[in-house]
Amino acid sequence: MKNLRIIGYGKDKGNKIIRFDNNIRHRMDDTQSHYTMSVNAVEKALLSAECAIDDMDLIVYASAVGYQPIPCSAALILDKLEPSGPIPCMDINTTCTSFITALDTISYMVHEGRYNRVLILSAETASLGINPEQKESYELFSDGAAAVIVEKDESAESGVMFGVWKTWTQGVHDTEIRGGLSSLHPRHYTEENKNEYLFDMNGPKVLRLVAKKIPEFVEQLEKESGMSLGDIDLIIPHQASRALPLIMEKLGIKEGKYMNHVEDYGNMIAASIPYMLCLALEEKRIKKGNTILLFGTAAGMTISGLIMRI
Amino acid sequence: MKNLRIIGYGKDKGNKIIRFDNNIRHRMDDTQSHYTMSVNAVEKALLSAECAIDDMDLIVYASAVGYQPIPCSAALILDKLEPSGPIPCMDINTTCTSFITALDTISYMVHEGRYNRVLILSAETASLGINPEQKESYELFSDGAAAVIVEKDESAESGVMFGVWKTWTQGVHDTEIRGGLSSLHPRHYTEENKNEYLFDMNGPKVLRLVAKKIPEFVEQLEKESGMSLGDIDLIIPHQASRALPLIMEKLGIKEGKYMNHVEDYGNMIAASIPYMLCLALEEKRIKKGNTILLFGTAAGMTISGLIMRI
Repeated sequence: MKNLRIIGYGKDKGNKIIRFDNNIRHRMDDTQSHYTMSVNAVEKALLSAECAIDDMDLIVYASAVGYQPIPCSAALILDKLEPSGPIPCMDINTTCTSFITALDTISYMVHEGRYNRVLILSAETASLGINPEQKESYELFSDGAAAVIVEKDESAESGVMFGVWKTWTQGVHDTEIRGGLSSLHPRHYTEENKNEYLFDMNGPKVLRLVAKKIPEFVEQLEKESGMSLGDIDLIIPHQASRALPLIMEKLGIKEGKYMNHVEDYGNMIAASIPYMLCLALEEKRIKKGNTILLFGTAAGMTISGLIMRI
Repeated sequence: MKNLRIIGYGKDKGNKIIRFDNNIRHRMDDTQSHYTMSVNAVEKALLSAECAIDDMDLIVYASAVGYQPIPCSAALILDKLEPSGPIPCMDINTTCTSFITALDTISYMVHEGRYNRVLILSAETASLGINPEQKESYELFSDGAAAVIVEKDESAESGVMFGVWKTWTQGVHDTEIRGGLSSLHPRHYTEENKNEYLFDMNGPKVLRLVAKKIPEFVEQLEKESGMSLGDIDLIIPHQASRALPLIMEKLGIKEGKYMNHVEDYGNMIAASIPYMLCLALEEKRIKKGNTILLFGTAAGMTISGLIMRI
């Protein structure tokens, strides 16, 4: 086990509530931005950890889309938090599962004593990039941010027990924003190609690939971790789509054993998993000693899983 | 020490040679792209390691700017390399020092046996984003890609001996591309604000901050690593600017003790450090048993250092 424990968490979401049938979506209003949601989430996390930004030893921005192409987003958000001295900053990105990858990766550095206290922030503004012509994704996403602070657990009671992720590239072009960086620079933006700069998802194709690969992924996760899904107190999945209960049923996971808030929160891209983790902690659905599985699919197509003792 | 050794490396650069006085810059011609340079660098690295892409246990894209906003660039480049099965993919970004951060971070996972063989790719296409009105940066950058394959070193003879990086956010707005992601979406691109989507650097201000912080950074690096710059066989610095010899002189590092190719290669953003590492290996300036320091500054403003026994 890589010893670390959660000492603080915070979240924020879009203030504007939009309804599509029974589904509630949270999107930024005119007073909000990617930065305001990020700062709010981090400030709440610092408050709950009884820490200041200067107490952090590493800042990780773990999201699909950043604030700017240069510099890295961790540096940009650290600046807003007004540290009194330098702190290492880095971005980690595996799209929707970025938070899992970040926690998994940095758990090695925390365990080895390289960093004692790490802030991980996932923040996404899907509403800026969705396409009204694609009803499925247009009605799916919310804007949100979630920050989690972890610290080395000297007692060795809490930590990351197992992590794995894999990318099947046959799904690489099924979930994309193609324009904005090197492949299609903003200077090429026109009325004709504007959709290239928006989110584009082939939902049914993604779902078919996910449904095909998820059982073998979970089988490997159980085998390599030496744990079964039955050992897990609560599964915290990415809120990928309204198909979440179907996927969970396929894996034999019963309702009540996992966080399912697609109806009331939607998909917040990389912010979904840490947002649901914050919600589970807030609502006391998990407590010290519990074992949780963070689990999700991402554009790529990537599947990630991480088992943690809280 | 985190045990790992370099088993392969490869690089590519822009085919078009442009001269500014004595300075040679390499920029993409019409047959090249971010992808072609990336694939070439990776294929050369695989060839020199006598490996296939399927032999890799993790793919890390370590650069400032990616191919697309979604999905992550590691997944997009893995797809071009036609793997026969899934491989974990992730992006790590600290702008110009991304390669150092990636090698430093994954060294913990390799040492612990999580991954045996890791491909790290840094690839940048600065020529797409430079502003002709900013002479200093317009004449500084080249396009390039460099890939390095590392493997766990069971003999414990080679590895990462020490790593450190820090971000001083008072320099966060001195080196930027502001437009393209959430802060300024491509839909807002106009003739009037087009420079917001291009590279913008306040060179003299960056240099003042770097010159002020680098001596204390190196002092800390020497103290915490227990090594002095005199113990290093070759320093491989980021080719940040023509001020490189001045900075090195300030640190008491003699000519011939560091890679200085700003005149003939320019600044390749995150690709510079691994490109210079490849060149040093190719030219046999370093050999097994040597100790090297990868060192550089990045937008943020970040300074990074990593000591490795080859």
